Amino acid sequence: MRVAVVGATGQAGTVIRSVLAQRGFPVDEIRYVASARSEGSRLDWDGREVAVEDCAKASFDGVDLVLMAAGKGTSKEHAPRMVEDGAIVVDNSSAWRMDPEVPLVVPEVNEDALGSIPKGIVANPNCTAMVAMPVLAPIHKAAGLKRVVVATYQAVSGAGLAGVRELEEQVAKTADQAEGLTLSGSAVEYPPHTVFAEPIAHNVVPYAGSLVDDGLGETDEEKKYRDESRKILGIPDLRLVCTCVRVPVFCGHGAALSLELDRELSAADATEILSCAPGVVLSEIPTPLRVAGGDVSAVGRIRTDETVEHGLSLFVCGDNLRKGAALNAVQIAESLIKIGRLPAA
Amino acid sequence: MRVAVVGATGQAGTVIRSVLAQRGFPVDEIRYVASARSEGSRLDWDGREVAVEDCAKASFDGVDLVLMAAGKGTSKEHAPRMVEDGAIVVDNSSAWRMDPEVPLVVPEVNEDALGSIPKGIVANPNCTAMVAMPVLAPIHKAAGLKRVVVATYQAVSGAGLAGVRELEEQVAKTADQAEGLTLSGSAVEYPPHTVFAEPIAHNVVPYAGSLVDDGLGETDEEKKYRDESRKILGIPDLRLVCTCVRVPVFCGHGAALSLELDRELSAADATEILSCAPGVVLSEIPTPLRVAGGDVSAVGRIRTDETVEHGLSLFVCGDNLRKGAALNAVQIAESLIKIGRLPAA
Repeated sequence: MRVAVVGATGQAGTVIRSVLAQRGFPVDEIRYVASARSEGSRLDWDGREVAVEDCAKASFDGVDLVLMAAGKGTSKEHAPRMVEDGAIVVDNSSAWRMDPEVPLVVPEVNEDALGSIPKGIVANPNCTAMVAMPVLAPIHKAAGLKRVVVATYQAVSGAGLAGVRELEEQVAKTADQAEGLTLSGSAVEYPPHTVFAEPIAHNVVPYAGSLVDDGLGETDEEKKYRDESRKILGIPDLRLVCTCVRVPVFCGHGAALSLELDRELSAADATEILSCAPGVVLSEIPTPLRVAGGDVSAVGRIRTDETVEHGLSLFVCGDNLRKGAALNAVQIAESLIKIGRLPAA
Repeated sequence: MRVAVVGATGQAGTVIRSVLAQRGFPVDEIRYVASARSEGSRLDWDGREVAVEDCAKASFDGVDLVLMAAGKGTSKEHAPRMVEDGAIVVDNSSAWRMDPEVPLVVPEVNEDALGSIPKGIVANPNCTAMVAMPVLAPIHKAAGLKRVVVATYQAVSGAGLAGVRELEEQVAKTADQAEGLTLSGSAVEYPPHTVFAEPIAHNVVPYAGSLVDDGLGETDEEKKYRDESRKILGIPDLRLVCTCVRVPVFCGHGAALSLELDRELSAADATEILSCAPGVVLSEIPTPLRVAGGDVSAVGRIRTDETVEHGLSLFVCGDNLRKGAALNAVQIAESLIKIGRLPAA
């Protein structure tokens, strides 16, 4: 198996490299690819150094699998060429997710969508929607999802390394200002912010991504959450409304979910179902800190919602860099081996 | 007007003292009262020092108004005695809020409830529910609230000075651990936590308060939000479900609100109504940092929710120490002057 990691020097690419090693993914030859800026720098694989290639100049002849963690534009431009060169591309960006000829896959949920890959590209879902999918799928199977109200608690690493740096810098500059921050937000000086719409340290920002022109006043993050959930869960008309909120957390996306189901499902039965759902762990108080660095979505606060017929509330958290991106991409590749679309070890 | 501030040395009491001064509340004589521990310490009023009295020993003879910011137990024990001594008590604790003979008041919303104060006690609402009330009241008036789904983003100061200290200490100990926190929550050592159920710095904790034994699996914070909203808004059967989440913010509570209304109300009309609602300011991106230190609830992200009939989503933030506690208590006292229950200046 010849594997190329594109965007190898970035945040998601770094986690992909470590997940490949941790899971003993059957790699015979590895190549690291990034933008021209990183060409020639060297990164570790299994104790030896591998030189990073410039994506624009690299050929993908002989590559079986590309794990791609670059931007949407890079993916649009280069993924088709990689497929022409003979590779299957598992892409982390939003470039291909809603293309009807591209499967959008969470292996625990819709591995069967890999049966048809007409463009040679498989899309990895948005990190925020992703962490809830292993939880929502078994509930849908048991009782039918009718409506979902979501409020997210999204970590800064969902906005890349730049997001992490922005929070880190603001925390460093304001860490000793607890009293000032308690009495008045405007009394404390923050360094300039460029990644998030407002200061993020000691704050929450109910605005992630940018507004889309759909007349609904929602952001692209909110639209992705709805559109991708529909596609992954196979419920094209799922009623889902979402408020995406950035919080001062480095890693781990959370979401409060209020569900309306087609049929009765008690909190106890939902708990029982989720206790044996793949990719899910029960947690009394699921928090980002507990899931960061792990592979599963934690779910808790499972309770009946009596304000609506067949209502259920719960809170879910998952590592947005692992399950939300790198891990899921590698899991997709493992599924491709299982179904014979990639060479076995 | 003779005013006693009980709990004067605490977080809410400190803000009450500063709000009284800022608003030029007509104080002829001030007394500061706290627990025995603080007896004899001195606090400023208008440039001179006032000795703090021990609540257990203090008489309230001659006091017109008690602004009480002590715990529930202290309030249960001492408020009736203060009323016997002749004072009106405006109480910040949860001790009296659901008593049918005690008005629970947000002046912009239900000032008329002050028309009957049979026990001589007026209750100040829970800080989390409070900040949404000036926003929900005019929407209810315009289109009727049918169901409300709430996810909160609650600041640590809602749990008192100890909550502020716990976040402050954890931030100080972990401020330089951005990389570790991004890769794995368990890799970073936190100081022990006692106020919140989980570490709060760089984390969110979907568990505020403690579980109540109502068979619904909700916390007392979640129950208070529903019960108090019903009483303040005058909708005894309001369907409201809430998930209370603590976030690493020093001051300012936020909430994502998904509303189902009885009648059509467009996002534009809701915005128009809220633009002239008392105690409310429109904000494109309402954040805790923007409202901390201010007097109004900020509301934004107002948008139509097409997943339900007559649906509306919005995000609201307010200063939990000022509007959520101290300011509202002083506003209640100002209303009591207006209706002749307290002496005018």
